[in-house]
Parts: sequence; C-alpha cells; structure tokens
Amino acid sequence: MFTAEQKKAGVTYPKGFLAAGVKAGIKKSGNLDVAMIYTPKEAAVAGTFTQNAVAAAPVYASKRVVKTGTAHAIVANAGCANACTGEQGEKDAAAMQSLAASALGCTAEDVIVASTGVIGVNLPMDKMEAGIAQAAKSLSSSGSVDAGNAIITTDTYSKCGATAVNIGGKEVRFGFIAKGSGMIQPNMATMLCFITTDLAIAPALLQKALSEVVPVTFNMISIDGDMSTNDMCIVLANGEAGNAIIDEENDDYALLKQTLKSICEELAKKIASDGEGATKFLTVHVSGTKSFEDAKTIAMSVAKSPLVKTAFFGEDPNWGRVICAVGYAGVPMDPEKTVVKFGGVPVYAHGVGAEADEEKLRSVMEAHDIVIDIDMGDGAEEATVWTCDFSYEYVKINGEYHT
Amino acid sequence: MFTAEQKKAGVTYPKGFLAAGVKAGIKKSGNLDVAMIYTPKEAAVAGTFTQNAVAAAPVYASKRVVKTGTAHAIVANAGCANACTGEQGEKDAAAMQSLAASALGCTAEDVIVASTGVIGVNLPMDKMEAGIAQAAKSLSSSGSVDAGNAIITTDTYSKCGATAVNIGGKEVRFGFIAKGSGMIQPNMATMLCFITTDLAIAPALLQKALSEVVPVTFNMISIDGDMSTNDMCIVLANGEAGNAIIDEENDDYALLKQTLKSICEELAKKIASDGEGATKFLTVHVSGTKSFEDAKTIAMSVAKSPLVKTAFFGEDPNWGRVICAVGYAGVPMDPEKTVVKFGGVPVYAHGVGAEADEEKLRSVMEAHDIVIDIDMGDGAEEATVWTCDFSYEYVKINGEYHT
Repeated sequence: MFTAEQKKAGVTYPKGFLAAGVKAGIKKSGNLDVAMIYTPKEAAVAGTFTQNAVAAAPVYASKRVVKTGTAHAIVANAGCANACTGEQGEKDAAAMQSLAASALGCTAEDVIVASTGVIGVNLPMDKMEAGIAQAAKSLSSSGSVDAGNAIITTDTYSKCGATAVNIGGKEVRFGFIAKGSGMIQPNMATMLCFITTDLAIAPALLQKALSEVVPVTFNMISIDGDMSTNDMCIVLANGEAGNAIIDEENDDYALLKQTLKSICEELAKKIASDGEGATKFLTVHVSGTKSFEDAKTIAMSVAKSPLVKTAFFGEDPNWGRVICAVGYAGVPMDPEKTVVKFGGVPVYAHGVGAEADEEKLRSVMEAHDIVIDIDMGDGAEEATVWTCDFSYEYVKINGEYHT
Repeated sequence: MFTAEQKKAGVTYPKGFLAAGVKAGIKKSGNLDVAMIYTPKEAAVAGTFTQNAVAAAPVYASKRVVKTGTAHAIVANAGCANACTGEQGEKDAAAMQSLAASALGCTAEDVIVASTGVIGVNLPMDKMEAGIAQAAKSLSSSGSVDAGNAIITTDTYSKCGATAVNIGGKEVRFGFIAKGSGMIQPNMATMLCFITTDLAIAPALLQKALSEVVPVTFNMISIDGDMSTNDMCIVLANGEAGNAIIDEENDDYALLKQTLKSICEELAKKIASDGEGATKFLTVHVSGTKSFEDAKTIAMSVAKSPLVKTAFFGEDPNWGRVICAVGYAGVPMDPEKTVVKFGGVPVYAHGVGAEADEEKLRSVMEAHDIVIDIDMGDGAEEATVWTCDFSYEYVKINGEYHT
C-alpha cells in the first residue's frame, strides 16, 4: 500500500504537518510515551469515539474539540489512560490541552487529547508538563516514527503509513499512526488512530465520511466485546494540498471516502493480526443474508467464540464450533441452506459435514492467514470481520499483567 | 443440600424410578456412555431446550415427546452429539426411541432422547443398539451413579443428588443427574439435566414451573455465548408420592417451583464451578437496575469478558476491567452512581477507584469463590450470574482437542 519512505513519513507525509514522540517517564518501561502532531494551518477535524458508557476524560475533552470543526494539534500519551479518574481526570485532560496550546500558540479548544494505559490512576502531571514542552520543541517533519512508538502499549509494532491520491487535479496526501488493541489489551483494548491529510474539505463532510467508514472497518474487528474506555479515531485535514475545497458530496468526496476506507481497513486488519499472543489472522466473511447487520451479527458471533478461536490456535478444522456459533448468533437461519468453507475448502454444506480434501484442509489450517466463508443462502448482503486466534500467550499476557 | 446416600440414589430416589449406565463403546475412552432412566408408571414430562438454530436431531425428537405431556423413559449417550447429521441423524434419534421403547414395552413417543459429544458424526447405531438393550436389562434402583457417569464428557465429576420435601402432606422426592458445560466443552458446551420426582402434577403446570425456573438458574451461567446444539433439561413426574395432583397454581405448586429452583440453582453453580480449567468460581451480582434484564445484561457482560476472567485467574483485583465491561454492556449507566465490590471490599465508587484495604483484598482474590457485587444505584432490580475464570488449562483443553 505504501513505500518504506512513506511509512517513515507517516503523519508528516501530508504538507504542513509536524510530529514528535518523547520520553516523559509515564510508561514504566521508560520508552517513548508522549506523542504530538501539529499543523500551523488550521485543520478541519473529525473524530469517532468509544461508545463505552465509562469513557475516559480525554474522550469528553476531544469530543468538544471535534464539535468546533477545527483543530491544530493532537497530544497523546501511553502508560496511563486517565479513565475512572473523576474530576481530577477532567482537570488533567484540560491541562494537557492548555499546556500544548501555550507551547504551540493556539487555543486549548484546538487541541485533541488522547490517553491509553492503566485505568483508575491519575496522570503524573509534572511528567506530562515536561513531556508536552519537550514534544513541542521536538516537532519536525521526521517525527512520525517517534510519535507512532509513543502511543503503542502491548502492540508488537507501530502501525503507520502514508499514501497519496489525485483529488481535484491535485496530489493529496494522507498519513497515519495507530495503536492496536492487541486482541484485548491489558490497558483496556484501546484503539487510537490519528490520520492527517492536506486535503481541503468542510469539517461536516470530513466527519460524515469518517462516520461512515469506521463502522465497516475499525468496528469490524472483534475485540471480544471489550470496548475500551479510551478508543478514538481522529482525522485532521489542513487544506495545504490546494484542491478546491470539498463542500458537497461530489466525486472528490467519493474518492476521499474510498481512500479513508482503504486506510482504515488496512489498519483494522493490522490491529487484528497483531492481537495479543495471536498466531493466526482470521477473516470471517458472511454472505447470503438479508442485511449487513445480520451478516455482521453472525460474523461477530463466530469471531468472538473462544471455542472457535482456540480451535484455530490448535489448527483443528472444527467446523462444528463454527456452525454452532452461527446457530446461536440470534439471526434466523436454515442449516439446509448454509455452506461453510475454510480457505475455500467446503467443510459444512446443507445441514451436514462436507467431504473435505483432508490434505488441502491441513495446509489451510497450517497457514497464518485463514479465511472462514459462511454463506447463509438467504439474501444478497454480506459482512467481513477480522480477528485472531486465542493462545496460551493471550492468557499469560492478560493473567500475569497486574494493576 | 443432600446426604451421601441421597446423592448415590440420585434419579432413583423418588419412588418408581430405575436407572442404568453402560459401556457401549461410543466414547473413545471406553467409559460408561449410555444412560437410561425409566418409570413403569407414566410420568408427566416437561422440558426446556437449546435456543440454537442448529439444534441436534435428539432435541427435535424430545421436543415432540414433551408436547405429548407424558413419558416413560430417558435414553442419553455421550461421545457423539448426533448434531449436523441431517436426515440420517433424525433416523438415528428415532431409532434410539424405538429401540428403547421395544426393550421397555412402551411406545417411541414415551422416550426422551439426548446426545452429547462430537458434532457432525453419525451415531454408531450397532453400538447404540447393543447399549440400549444392555441398559434396559441393567435398570435398577441403584443405577443412578452409573447413569450420571454415562452422560459426562470433560466434567471432572458427575453432578447428582436428591432431596425430599413435604407437599400436600406427603413426602415428595426429587432426584437429578446433570452434566456441565465445563466453561465451554470441546463437545459444544452441552448441558444435560434430568430430574425425576414422584410428585403428582399436571404436565402443563410442570412445564410452566420449569420454564420459569430455567431462565433464573441454568440460563444465568456464562458459557461465553457458546450455546450448545444439544442442551436440554427434562423433568419426569410419575405421581407415585400419592399427593393430591397439582392442577392449579396453589401453595403446592409454589413449593414445587421453589424446590425446582433450588435444585437447578445448585446444579447451575456446580456446572459453572467445574468449568474447563477453572481455578475460581465467580458470582457476579448486579443490583440497582430498572429491570432484571438490565441487571442480567450487565452481569453477563462482566462474566463473559476474557479480560475479567484472566484477571481473576491472575488474582489481580483489576476493577478497571470490570467497570469497563459494565460500561460497554449496552445498558445506560451513570458512573457516579455505580459501586463495585470484590468479596464485600469496595474497589470502585462513584466514578473513581476506592481506597481498598489491600490486605483484605488480597485474601479475597486468593480464595476459590469470589463474589463481584455491582450496584448501579439506579433501581430496585437485580440479577446473579455464575461463571469461572480463564486459565492456561482452558486454552490447552480447547486448543489441543481435535475433531
């Protein structure tokens, strides 16, 4: 999707963006833990946030920024989630905004804030203050890699990249850094994604595009229902590309939406694949339903089943567990019409097990990437969910992690 | 709840019931695998069955028996679920009924059938035929222990027992055998429960009582959503106790329902506690909601979270994971009103972590049985869900089990 150079450029690939990642001492490991992204030119901003009723303080603060339609900066930290921290948490999130605003010469309402890490612990604001000051000083056009590393927790690598498309006769660039949920992070599965672009677009349309893309990309990763208190996906669009501003749903808008979708899908897959202790990347594709929602419900039921996940960890083509999860998904089904394939090999068809090519099936199960196709034979809609398997390592990471 | 002698008597404790368990060679281990329960006197029958859209052939066959209101026998096997077996499966379930009926001198419509084990494999009917014949010959008033052992799969022990209550001036006896779901069985989490009683009651009222008791007992165990294709709970009531037949919702009915509830709750807890690889028995009690359904939804969200389950395995009082699972349960909540306690020790109150007595909390987390109390502060309803933790052993059992 992108070159090594684009990957390195990340969020600074679009014109007019700077980034930094510094060590503020918030992560116990002493690794990079405060990230900053900045555009001197005001950017349109859009965001989607966790639906968790127990949302963290930075989520509320950033929602208010998105409401204004514009922003200049993102400040994020790992190591402490600033969640379940009450009034002090709200004050600390607001302080992150003002500290960054002072350092950058913008207003507090121009600063998106995000946190990920341990829940129920207050932010060490002395460290945060020094970190934000240092990050502002370190901003550069080569700071994306550090920024990406500053937001990861148990991810095995930073998800980042960049791409360019021609919109309205201009080269428009997109850059992004994201941190995954592992499968479920000890720090609450937090998914953070920051996308920059030099596209010129009205805030309302940027929000519309993002709001339509997230449900079919990031929301299609199974994180076992463990929705974080801190999830957010933010897009900043500063207009430096010089395209005619997108202010209606024209072809340029369609192209933007398509680009956003491919970026978010790529990141969603990477996040699922880098699940905690994961040894397999599973694509659950359900087709032949009456609605997208039905297909998603069935796919999620399969993707979330610990029984299915452990079977794939064990490389066992146990279609019985899959069809069972389909059966209890809550969507009316006719087993006679249903066909299940693993890697293209039919394993269940029309109420009974299929005569599978054992040799072929074994090689399907041994691969890292496995596609589970489920055709319900009852409509024209479909949905795809991405997940990973369930391993000893998962239990180890989550059982031995202590608060 | 019951003496060792009652436990041994099990389903034969009530007057007029015989039982047997034999080795038919269906389980690979060679252990007992065909169970039979028989009452010469016709019994009122009631049953509840899996809601899974992919239900096994014996489920359909037994539903038809329950519809007639009366039955004489139960035949069950472990080792093969007769699920996803199409027309052949239906024929085999019907054959189990007729073979038992011939041996016992009743009709096929008098015989409840149940199966548990591998999915997608046809029953070995030659072995089944011999097994049923042998079981019918072995029926005795001391056959309950063998019958109980014949239906278990990965359970570490057979759940069985008996009790007596005074109803309408007569001693009425109840006996029961059940097999658990582990947490989730490799053989699809199948829960089988067979209850016998010498109570005299109209079939419709027996069904009403059972239908009201199961939702607050067996349906309150978290089995991670992995609802089996084969679950069933059956009650046979042959009237031998000589009580005035219960044919309206009088005090006797209330007493029956209360007895059924305590039996089912006891068995539900045992099943949750004997989960696969379980090292902890967790009681999730949610109170202060507007409805039972809301309380159940929240309790299930917590009980099913792998993140919560691994934390308790690691003996980590990670209330952040609990409050997070409460937050994404889908029930509107106010964090400010919510209080969470582990073993009576407050860990989260009104939006922030509580100052917990570390010493006390450690001893709570080290115990085998742990109660998680969640007060939502928003109503007078409540619900309790029983579950277990998530261990390495769980992944081992389910990852290494091969079809």
